[in-house]
Amino acid sequence: MKNMLLAQSGGPSAAINATIAGAVERVLTSGQVDRIYGAVNGIKGVFEERFVDLREPLSSPQQIKRLCHTPAAALGSCRMKLRADDESLFERLIAVFRKYEISYFIYIGGNDSMDTVCKLSRYLKEKGIDDIFVMGAPKTIDNDLMHTDHCPGYGSAAKYIAATFAELRCDCNVYDVPAVTIVEVMGRNAGWLTAASALSRLGGGEGPDAIYLCETVFDPEQFLCDIKERLQKKDALLIAVSEGLRDKNGSYICELSGSSGCDVFGHTQLSGTAKCLEYLVRERIGCKVRSIELSLMQRCASHLASATDLYESRMLGMTAADRCLCGESGRMAVVERVSDEPYRVRYGSADLSGIANEEKKIPLEWIAPQGNDILEPLLTYMKPLILGEEPIEYCGGVPVHGALYDAGDYFSR
Amino acid sequence: MKNMLLAQSGGPSAAINATIAGAVERVLTSGQVDRIYGAVNGIKGVFEERFVDLREPLSSPQQIKRLCHTPAAALGSCRMKLRADDESLFERLIAVFRKYEISYFIYIGGNDSMDTVCKLSRYLKEKGIDDIFVMGAPKTIDNDLMHTDHCPGYGSAAKYIAATFAELRCDCNVYDVPAVTIVEVMGRNAGWLTAASALSRLGGGEGPDAIYLCETVFDPEQFLCDIKERLQKKDALLIAVSEGLRDKNGSYICELSGSSGCDVFGHTQLSGTAKCLEYLVRERIGCKVRSIELSLMQRCASHLASATDLYESRMLGMTAADRCLCGESGRMAVVERVSDEPYRVRYGSADLSGIANEEKKIPLEWIAPQGNDILEPLLTYMKPLILGEEPIEYCGGVPVHGALYDAGDYFSR
Repeated sequence: MKNMLLAQSGGPSAAINATIAGAVERVLTSGQVDRIYGAVNGIKGVFEERFVDLREPLSSPQQIKRLCHTPAAALGSCRMKLRADDESLFERLIAVFRKYEISYFIYIGGNDSMDTVCKLSRYLKEKGIDDIFVMGAPKTIDNDLMHTDHCPGYGSAAKYIAATFAELRCDCNVYDVPAVTIVEVMGRNAGWLTAASALSRLGGGEGPDAIYLCETVFDPEQFLCDIKERLQKKDALLIAVSEGLRDKNGSYICELSGSSGCDVFGHTQLSGTAKCLEYLVRERIGCKVRSIELSLMQRCASHLASATDLYESRMLGMTAADRCLCGESGRMAVVERVSDEPYRVRYGSADLSGIANEEKKIPLEWIAPQGNDILEPLLTYMKPLILGEEPIEYCGGVPVHGALYDAGDYFSR
Repeated sequence: MKNMLLAQSGGPSAAINATIAGAVERVLTSGQVDRIYGAVNGIKGVFEERFVDLREPLSSPQQIKRLCHTPAAALGSCRMKLRADDESLFERLIAVFRKYEISYFIYIGGNDSMDTVCKLSRYLKEKGIDDIFVMGAPKTIDNDLMHTDHCPGYGSAAKYIAATFAELRCDCNVYDVPAVTIVEVMGRNAGWLTAASALSRLGGGEGPDAIYLCETVFDPEQFLCDIKERLQKKDALLIAVSEGLRDKNGSYICELSGSSGCDVFGHTQLSGTAKCLEYLVRERIGCKVRSIELSLMQRCASHLASATDLYESRMLGMTAADRCLCGESGRMAVVERVSDEPYRVRYGSADLSGIANEEKKIPLEWIAPQGNDILEPLLTYMKPLILGEEPIEYCGGVPVHGALYDAGDYFSR
C-alpha cells in the first residue's frame, strides 16, 4: 500500500486550502496512491498521529470548491521547527510514516515548513531511505519565499488590501478638515503586502498618499516632512506603513521611545507601528490623526480572494503531488513568471536548500528613492496577482466555509 | 424655477450613496424639478454655496450603478449641529435657498442631520414659509434612529461584520493552543453592529463564543468567568465586544484603570475597549490573547454590501424625494417591517420631532440574561437585512468607485 500525507503549517491565508484541493485532484487521477491522509495541526499532528481521511470530505466538486473558498488552514496549523541535531525526531516521523505506509508527504507552508521538509529530506538521504518522497508547497501571504515568482496567499491578501485602501480612500475623503489616516499592513521584514496598497489606484482612485516599506530605513523626520508637505495640497491623507518599519539603528519603530510619543505606553512591545506614528503626528503636527491595523482580516478575507491566486495555489498543489509521485524529493513546487503582459507562468520545482530560512525582499530599485512610494516595476509585478473575482457561496448572506474534520474527529491506529 | 438640493452628513456608510441615486431617479421621473443640486460637505456646503449639478454625473445607468457601489459619502460630509437659538443661521440658509431657487431640500444622515432638518422645518413653519419643503433620509450604520425599522448602511456593515467573523473564526481555529481573540465592533451606545457578529453562524460556522453589547452593564469579573469556562471546552475563543461597553458605574471600559490592566497607558482615552480587555485577559488568565478593531472597514466595505440594504437605501431616497414633491416637510423617510418571513417592508415617513436626538437601542429582551449573547428575536430581526450580494464592478482586480465632483470642482454664483 502506498499512501500520501498532506499537512499545513504557518500563518493562515485565503489560498492555502486550494493547494490541498490541487494535490488531492492530482492524486485521484494518478491511480498510484491508496489513501490520502491529512495530518491535523501540521507536523505536530504527524508526531501525534492525528490523521483524517481526505477522500471522504473531498468527494464532490462542491466540497472541493467550498474548500478552496475557505480561509485559514482547513487541516489546522502549527508553529514548530525541528532541531536538525535531534535524530530521534526524524526516527519518530519515519516510524509514523511506516506505520501508515506513507510514501509521499507534502508540507504546505512558509519558511519554517520548508525548513522541516528540507531537514527531513536530508535525513532520508543520509539514511538511504529511497521509498519516501517529501515535497514542499509554498504558502505565505508575506510573499517572501525564494525561488518562486510569488507565493499562494499573497495575491488574495494583496487584493483585500487594495480593495480596502480604495474604500478607505473614499471614507477619508468625506471631511474637509486636515486629517491623517495611517494604515498598518502585515510584514515584519518584507514589504510586499504594504506595497499592495498602491494597487488601489488601479480602480481609478487616488490610492495612498505615501507608502513606507520595511525594506528601507524609516526616518521619522522625513515622514513628518512628507506629511506636512502633502497636507499643504489636500486635507485627507491616507498613509500605508509596514508593520516592520525600522529606523537607521535597526530598531523597530513600534519599540521606539522618547520624542516619538511611543513612550506613553508602559509596554511598548504591545503597540503597533501605525499607533506609534499616530502619536508622532499628533504630537508634532497636531492635526486629526488615526491609525488602523488590517490585522487578521488581510490574511483570511476569502470572500475577496484573487481568482488568479486560488487557481495558482491549486496548480502548485497539483505540481507538488505530481513531482512527488514522479520520484522527486526535498524540493518545493514553484511558479515561474514567463511574461507580465499577457501574464503567463510555468510550474516547476526548486531545491529546498536555497529556500528554507531565506527571505525574499522587495528589490530596492522597485522602491522610490525617497522611500515613500513604490515604482512602476513593482506595480507591474503585483498587478496580475490580484486579477479575477471568485464566485463565493453564500448562505443567508454569509460566506459558507468547508471543514475537513470536526475537533477531535480524527483517528489514530 | 423649482430646484432640489441634496446633501449628506454624518459618518460614512456603504449605502448612503444609493439614497442619492434613488432621490435623483424619483426627481427625473417627476417633471417637477428643474435643477438637482448636491451640496458638498453637508449643511456646511450649503452655507458656503459649494454646489454641484447632479444631473451630469448621474446621466447613465452605469454612473448610477457605480455611485450605489461607492462607499462613504460621494457629496462629502460634515459634523455640524445648528444652534436653534441662532436665527441668523436659518436666515442665511433661506437666503441661499432663494438664491438658487431651491424648493426641496433632502438631508441624508443620522441623528445630527435629522436635528438640522427638524430645526430648519420648525423655522420655516414659524416664519410661514410654505414654498420650501425639507425632508430627512435616514443613514447610519449604528441603526439607532427611531421610527424606522432599520437604517440604510446598517445591513451592509452587518454583512461585512458577519462575513469577517466567519473568516476570523476559521483563522482562530487553526492552532491547538488556548487563545482568545477579542474583536471590537463600532457602537458607543447601541450594540446593533456588534450583535451582527452572531449572523456569522448562518453560514454554518460556530460564530463568536460570546457577545457583549453596550445595552447591558459589563462586569469584567463575569467576563473573565465566561472566558475561563469556555476555555475548558475549546482552545480558540472568538469574542465580540461593543466599542461602548460600560461598567456598573457607567464608566467606559476603555477608560477604566487599576486592576483592569488599562493603566499601562499614559493616555487611557486613546486605547480601545478590545485592547483593554486584551490586557485584562493577559493579566488575569495569562493565555495567548489578541485584540482586533474592525475600524473604518466595517462602515465602508462596499465590495460586500448587502443587496437588500442598497435597494432599500435607494427606495428611501425615492420616498424622501416623493414626499417632498408632494408637499410633505419636516419628516424623515422610513421603512416599516410588515413581516419577517417572507421579509416584506413598506416605505413611509415619520415626524422628525420624535427622531432627532433620540437613540434606538436593542430591546433588553433580545439579549441573553447573562449579557453574553443575543437571543433568537434579534437574529430574526437582523437576518433579512444582510441578504443578497451586489455585482460590483472591478477594474484590474480592484472595485471601481464613482465620484460626483473633483476637489474644488464646484460652483458658486
